[in-house]
Amino acid sequence: ALVGEGFLCERYCLFFSCSIGMAKSKFEYVRNFETDDTCLKNCYIVVRLDGRNFHKLSELHKFLKPNDDRALGLMTRCARSVMEDMDDIIISYGQSDEYSFIFKRSSNWFKRRASKLMTHVVSQFSSSYVFYWKEYFGDQPLLYPPGFDGRVVLYPSNRNLRDYLSWRQADCHINNLYNTVFWTLVQRGGLTTTQAEDRLKGTLAADKNEIMFSEFDINYNNEPLVHRKGTALIWEKMEETVTKRVKLPNEDEKEVPVTRFRRRVSACHCDIIGDQFWEEHPDILEDDNC
Amino acid sequence: ALVGEGFLCERYCLFFSCSIGMAKSKFEYVRNFETDDTCLKNCYIVVRLDGRNFHKLSELHKFLKPNDDRALGLMTRCARSVMEDMDDIIISYGQSDEYSFIFKRSSNWFKRRASKLMTHVVSQFSSSYVFYWKEYFGDQPLLYPPGFDGRVVLYPSNRNLRDYLSWRQADCHINNLYNTVFWTLVQRGGLTTTQAEDRLKGTLAADKNEIMFSEFDINYNNEPLVHRKGTALIWEKMEETVTKRVKLPNEDEKEVPVTRFRRRVSACHCDIIGDQFWEEHPDILEDDNC
Amino acid sequence: ALVGEGFLCERYCLFFSCSIGMAKSKFEYVRNFETDDTCLKNCYIVVRLDGRNFHKLSELHKFLKPNDDRALGLMTRCARSVMEDMDDIIISYGQSDEYSFIFKRSSNWFKRRASKLMTHVVSQFSSSYVFYWKEYFGDQPLLYPPGFDGRVVLYPSNRNLRDYLSWRQADCHINNLYNTVFWTLVQRGGLTTTQAEDRLKGTLAADKNEIMFSEFDINYNNEPLVHRKGTALIWEKMEETVTKRVKLPNEDEKEVPVTRFRRRVSACHCDIIGDQFWEEHPDILEDDNC
Amino acid sequence: ALVGEGFLCERYCLFFSCSIGMAKSKFEYVRNFETDDTCLKNCYIVVRLDGRNFHKLSELHKFLKPNDDRALGLMTRCARSVMEDMDDIIISYGQSDEYSFIFKRSSNWFKRRASKLMTHVVSQFSSSYVFYWKEYFGDQPLLYPPGFDGRVVLYPSNRNLRDYLSWRQADCHINNLYNTVFWTLVQRGGLTTTQAEDRLKGTLAADKNEIMFSEFDINYNNEPLVHRKGTALIWEKMEETVTKRVKLPNEDEKEVPVTRFRRRVSACHCDIIGDQFWEEHPDILEDDNC
Repeated sequence: ALVGEGFLCERYCLFFSCSIGMAKSKFEYVRNFETDDTCLKNCYIVVRLDGRNFHKLSELHKFLKPNDDRALGLMTRCARSVMEDMDDIIISYGQSDEYSFIFKRSSNWFKRRASKLMTHVVSQFSSSYVFYWKEYFGDQPLLYPPGFDGRVVLYPSNRNLRDYLSWRQADCHINNLYNTVFWTLVQRGGLTTTQAEDRLKGTLAADKNEIMFSEFDINYNNEPLVHRKGTALIWEKMEETVTKRVKLPNEDEKEVPVTRFRRRVSACHCDIIGDQFWEEHPDILEDDNC
Repeated sequence: ALVGEGFLCERYCLFFSCSIGMAKSKFEYVRNFETDDTCLKNCYIVVRLDGRNFHKLSELHKFLKPNDDRALGLMTRCARSVMEDMDDIIISYGQSDEYSFIFKRSSNWFKRRASKLMTHVVSQFSSSYVFYWKEYFGDQPLLYPPGFDGRVVLYPSNRNLRDYLSWRQADCHINNLYNTVFWTLVQRGGLTTTQAEDRLKGTLAADKNEIMFSEFDINYNNEPLVHRKGTALIWEKMEETVTKRVKLPNEDEKEVPVTRFRRRVSACHCDIIGDQFWEEHPDILEDDNC
Repeated sequence: ALVGEGFLCERYCLFFSCSIGMAKSKFEYVRNFETDDTCLKNCYIVVRLDGRNFHKLSELHKFLKPNDDRALGLMTRCARSVMEDMDDIIISYGQSDEYSFIFKRSSNWFKRRASKLMTHVVSQFSSSYVFYWKEYFGDQPLLYPPGFDGRVVLYPSNRNLRDYLSWRQADCHINNLYNTVFWTLVQRGGLTTTQAEDRLKGTLAADKNEIMFSEFDINYNNEPLVHRKGTALIWEKMEETVTKRVKLPNEDEKEVPVTRFRRRVSACHCDIIGDQFWEEHPDILEDDNC
Repeated sequence: ALVGEGFLCERYCLFFSCSIGMAKSKFEYVRNFETDDTCLKNCYIVVRLDGRNFHKLSELHKFLKPNDDRALGLMTRCARSVMEDMDDIIISYGQSDEYSFIFKRSSNWFKRRASKLMTHVVSQFSSSYVFYWKEYFGDQPLLYPPGFDGRVVLYPSNRNLRDYLSWRQADCHINNLYNTVFWTLVQRGGLTTTQAEDRLKGTLAADKNEIMFSEFDINYNNEPLVHRKGTALIWEKMEETVTKRVKLPNEDEKEVPVTRFRRRVSACHCDIIGDQFWEEHPDILEDDNC
């Protein structure tokens, strides 16, 4: 034999105790410092992520103002990647450099552990951003790996969840209206950014619409829906007919049509504040009193 | 004027109340559902991330067994990217498909909010993984965006923190010893994976060393340190001398040497369980009684 | 003047800095170690308390078996004291040595801080237990101050809350059925406690009823409701007519009846599992979708 | 037989399913809504309680101003009762209507569950307050059951813990100095409370001492320690010699002295901000680096 246990300990291990397994178990008590962050049951789990320092990212990569469709398309491509990876996400909503993912209230993914849920979403989104970049920006290179941060929020009722989504879509509306007027004043009106800012100080929605209409002949209502409403991703059920070759005993082989039900992620740029969207998609939310 | 407020509300808004701002504030109560997840002060904050489903990733991308130096190098490149982005990380330790990042106990990054800290680390790491892939795998394409998950653990004392790092390094040792023998039996000994598993069942560290030495003439102690010890990243202080051209009044312009202190991330594959490493780097840990 | 500041510092203070206020502010950083334990909004907050070591308490104070009405009365007296102190408790339910207090989902008591809510309930209950002891036990002295512990649980929906209360009432039923047969076997059947335990091992509800009926002529269904159902405390609205003496200008003083609405705590020992109770008291629960 | 299962269900149960046990298990899912509130290991656990509405309590029961020694004595009696009930409390500190209890950092009481720890302390304290009232207030009756609320705070280092206790003792000093001058001005100086308040507005410690000394011939430093320093309760080790009768084989029965070590709660009114107290009681704190 090459070596005795004692020899091994000096030559191969740096541990004080003889067996490596014992050394490990001596330290393993540190696992007990982990805390439980299970999300309260029967609540919707929302993971929202935001781009970190996207002001700089958009400058450096010359994103178009007020909206860069390549950047918006990439965000939605990443959200789709997250959603396809996690069955229990029932709807996602994104605008600008943020995206919200809603897990169904009965979800038991990762045992509802908040840290697992949010890091998984943010990780998948971040790696997708780099991975799919060239599909949207072609030869223009991504200059550095971008970052996102995330958080988890719980909503106990359908009303709360809908109000959360309404809050984000109202935010989209307010910001997009402002940005559209602002950049119109700068790009077509020839104002400096400071002048445009001053011009818009204190204006209401009506004033901003008026500026665009009377000075630039723009009807804000005709601006693209993706900019005014953001993007909601939902699951769409599909019926699919596949032809299968079947050979039964005492029969010739033949082709038979087989109907399968699948679901796929589908994007829409519609209003999610009013009731219509929810009435048209009754399967998204679960009953409150469950 | 084009439109009155009332008109606007019907034509341009989908909100029930007239002013968009009001609509937003009606929904904004949902912000109060966010909970505070501030980390206890004066504790080390550890963020550990793990590859998700890296078994499949390593199969598909034909990672070498038992260790693929390209994959290990990429992990460390990503960790370096995280560390350079966050001053308050004092040491990182990685092995296999996991990496731990330790924030100094007095850190106030993101106001010590656990969700922000862990999602930021995991996001930066994930996007870096795709971004730097080709530096390590050259023309071999990455087939899909990989995922990582993360968690936060707090340690109140230097002893606890060192034991945490020791636990991870002991884990590295145990796994690498096993994997090294296992793949030697398969690759050079011609065993099937099942046979190799059976052969190793119940063996101690000494037995494994003995198998490698007597049957394959391998001294495990000569295996590369990066495999046996994993990788620790620390900050190294550097003195740098730069030449500056200076022009003082009534003097000719001249070149003067200027000494600057910088710090950069430095990797080592050394034992971090014993005292020596910590005595050589007394600046990593803060005094317990602070 | 008696003393200068410097003198004062040496003679009167033990603080290192001169001003006492400064000394305090030097230590005050410790406040930042407190963590936020706000309860998620729009959820019912349940505080349940349990007697600590009530087995010993009931032995020492010779509580009657299987139920001591003095002890049960005292528990309910304490719960009433808690409820009268806190408007936002909508219903309480108690049995044996436990009581549950349900705060309305929109409550903002103590800013919904879990620690404040549970300690306040438990404190008020505990001091009441000693305070009201003699009303139920007369001259029999309380031998030592008893303890209770408490916890907070959140329920997002009406269904969840009702299931919680059903769980506690089912627990009451199961325990009381068992205890009633058990003590009947001991007190009237002459079995030892061990013999009674053995006799009941593996029996179902039907078997226990059968034993009581056929051997002791007891119909369990006729046992007192307070034992079989426990006690629910709810708010009862009352109309009260008071006579007021009124003196209007240019009129004689006269007596006028004034109707006031008050509410008071009312006890019932009814089933709270089925729908009837909740249909008869539609004001207890708030609408789910709020 | 009296009844079949079906009959039983209608006659004896109100549950929808036949077996009571099944009914219970149908509801038992509600247990999973409880969250884990384990305190981080290796930290001191502080439970602080405060009297609720003690302004009113002290008015109604005519507590003496600025300090009522009966009330202070009762508070300390209750704290002693808590401490004797829980071995793992290493020191308690109280002043005015508050008391802090410090659990040793390695404590595993109630598995370190915050809710259990705080409710138990507050409950035991509250019932003791009523129970021991007459020992301090004699025939003067307690008019209603008083309430306390509590909280849990964690401290990772000895320095943090000592600073916490210093913070409370500095608070005691500041309040007592103020109250002593204030009530001297009112009781002996004949000022109204408003006049006394105005007189003290903006004064420093030195000014307050000066007022007492020059106008009332009071040296604040001679005021009772219990008022100026509050009360610390610690464990005191005692040696006790008991005589035992012993009978060994082949010997006559004889009496032998047996030395036993016990510990008991001991009160002191000393400075706990400086080092001296901690040097004299080295056993209270555990080593930081454990």
